[in-house]
Amino acid sequence: MELIDGNGIARQVIEELTEEVASLDGPTPCVTFVRVGEDPASVSYVNKKQKTAAEIGVESRLELFPESISQEELIVEIDRLNADPSNHGILVQSPLPRHIDETAIFNQVAVAKDVDGFNATNVGRMCQEEEDAFVACTPAGILELIKRSGVETEGKRAVVLGRSLIVGKPAGLLLLRKGMPGNATVTICHSRTPDIASIASEADILVAAIGKPEFVTAEMIKPGAAVIDVGINRVEDSSKKRGYRLVGDVAFDEVAPLVSKITPVPGGVGPMTVAMLMRNTVKAYRLAENL
Amino acid sequence: MELIDGNGIARQVIEELTEEVASLDGPTPCVTFVRVGEDPASVSYVNKKQKTAAEIGVESRLELFPESISQEELIVEIDRLNADPSNHGILVQSPLPRHIDETAIFNQVAVAKDVDGFNATNVGRMCQEEEDAFVACTPAGILELIKRSGVETEGKRAVVLGRSLIVGKPAGLLLLRKGMPGNATVTICHSRTPDIASIASEADILVAAIGKPEFVTAEMIKPGAAVIDVGINRVEDSSKKRGYRLVGDVAFDEVAPLVSKITPVPGGVGPMTVAMLMRNTVKAYRLAENL
Repeated sequence: MELIDGNGIARQVIEELTEEVASLDGPTPCVTFVRVGEDPASVSYVNKKQKTAAEIGVESRLELFPESISQEELIVEIDRLNADPSNHGILVQSPLPRHIDETAIFNQVAVAKDVDGFNATNVGRMCQEEEDAFVACTPAGILELIKRSGVETEGKRAVVLGRSLIVGKPAGLLLLRKGMPGNATVTICHSRTPDIASIASEADILVAAIGKPEFVTAEMIKPGAAVIDVGINRVEDSSKKRGYRLVGDVAFDEVAPLVSKITPVPGGVGPMTVAMLMRNTVKAYRLAENL
Repeated sequence: MELIDGNGIARQVIEELTEEVASLDGPTPCVTFVRVGEDPASVSYVNKKQKTAAEIGVESRLELFPESISQEELIVEIDRLNADPSNHGILVQSPLPRHIDETAIFNQVAVAKDVDGFNATNVGRMCQEEEDAFVACTPAGILELIKRSGVETEGKRAVVLGRSLIVGKPAGLLLLRKGMPGNATVTICHSRTPDIASIASEADILVAAIGKPEFVTAEMIKPGAAVIDVGINRVEDSSKKRGYRLVGDVAFDEVAPLVSKITPVPGGVGPMTVAMLMRNTVKAYRLAENL
């Protein structure tokens, strides 16, 4: 069994991007983060993203708005950012306050600046296998882990557990497309799948994104499979100082001995998302500046 | 075995739309067909669509351009149609001449007038399960056949043979979504799938859209499955006056005795596409006119 080292692979991507940005001959790439309110998790995520941007040599800007901003006002702000040519990418940090329609805001971000890949047009372009499409960071990270850890996908059975728009569906579509990685035969399972264990046990590649702690157990694994665990779940644990531990959607201890490769949680898919965000930012920059 | 009567179901949809249009209180719904060149099949398809529109009470306009039109000129024409409020839907008849990028033209059609469902934004919105999305006519027709012939999808295994953007992928995404029909566990197979027969034989619902005459044979069928045959292939047949016969992707004679329901070719999915185009047109009209 080989551990797929998400931290190491993310680090590698970030180093490559740092070299790439240093070699660019043009204005400085710039990404703008939009944060509404003071949700502590959002504050922390945006900080992390800004820190990584700085490390790579990408300028980042922070646009803060109060919890009370209306959807119409936020749309005006997004349009302003869309129109600013010095800004190459826009990320609206989720979650937004309940009175704002998140999908409407994501769709307001210009297609060419949508480094989060949540605009419907980018979802459609990804589905159409357009190279210029921006792919959402978590599914893009899953595919990058698969690619860089040498998991073969061509002609393999891939089973995705979970049909969310943010992870399950795009991960399935990416594994299906013509290319490397890709050309897998893809099955997407979900809460209405009655025989999920037997389907999972046919997978050469199993992507678990179902949001249930340690849902995938040993009998759901085909020996030698590669397992990508997208879940991050808190489980009560009084032995920990903070009172919980983080576990994935895979029961790691019993599954790991059976597989060829597996991502740990934490340290698997998680670190990849920021790296993919940065890759999307550099891509948006290159497309905008014709570099 | 029960035959899924595509002609009858399409007729039923058309009659419902005729009643619906007659009951509408507003300007006349209008769809514009764009045809470039004189490809005989395109002429015939557009004629058929115009005839059905007239029957339903939908005005249709025909915009004809010479084979020599440039992509830039065609884009100007599409923009003119996009801007005309008396025109609710636009269909650009495929194929276009080789010097024109078809995807670019489809993406030029306004999202709200894209009754063909080929604009990337509509593909993304379909993926996002947005109700207002326009779904391409062939996959929409497949789902309508499934619905109206009473094929249960919830919790069932659906296998789609073919991963095309026009049929296979959207049909898979529609079967997967939350709703009725939907909630199926979906597998998409394609030319790189090594064990296609064994996967197909697990399907409660088999959608064949692989473009190979009589590819699906008896041993690929789970007894009692529902089979939707999207293929229309010409096979040489000297006993026919025109020298060929039309066959689907399914070897009908050997498969039909095993299944619960099956579409014939012709007379299955084919007639549904024009009906779904008309449904999309009435939908575009309602959204545009707030009716």
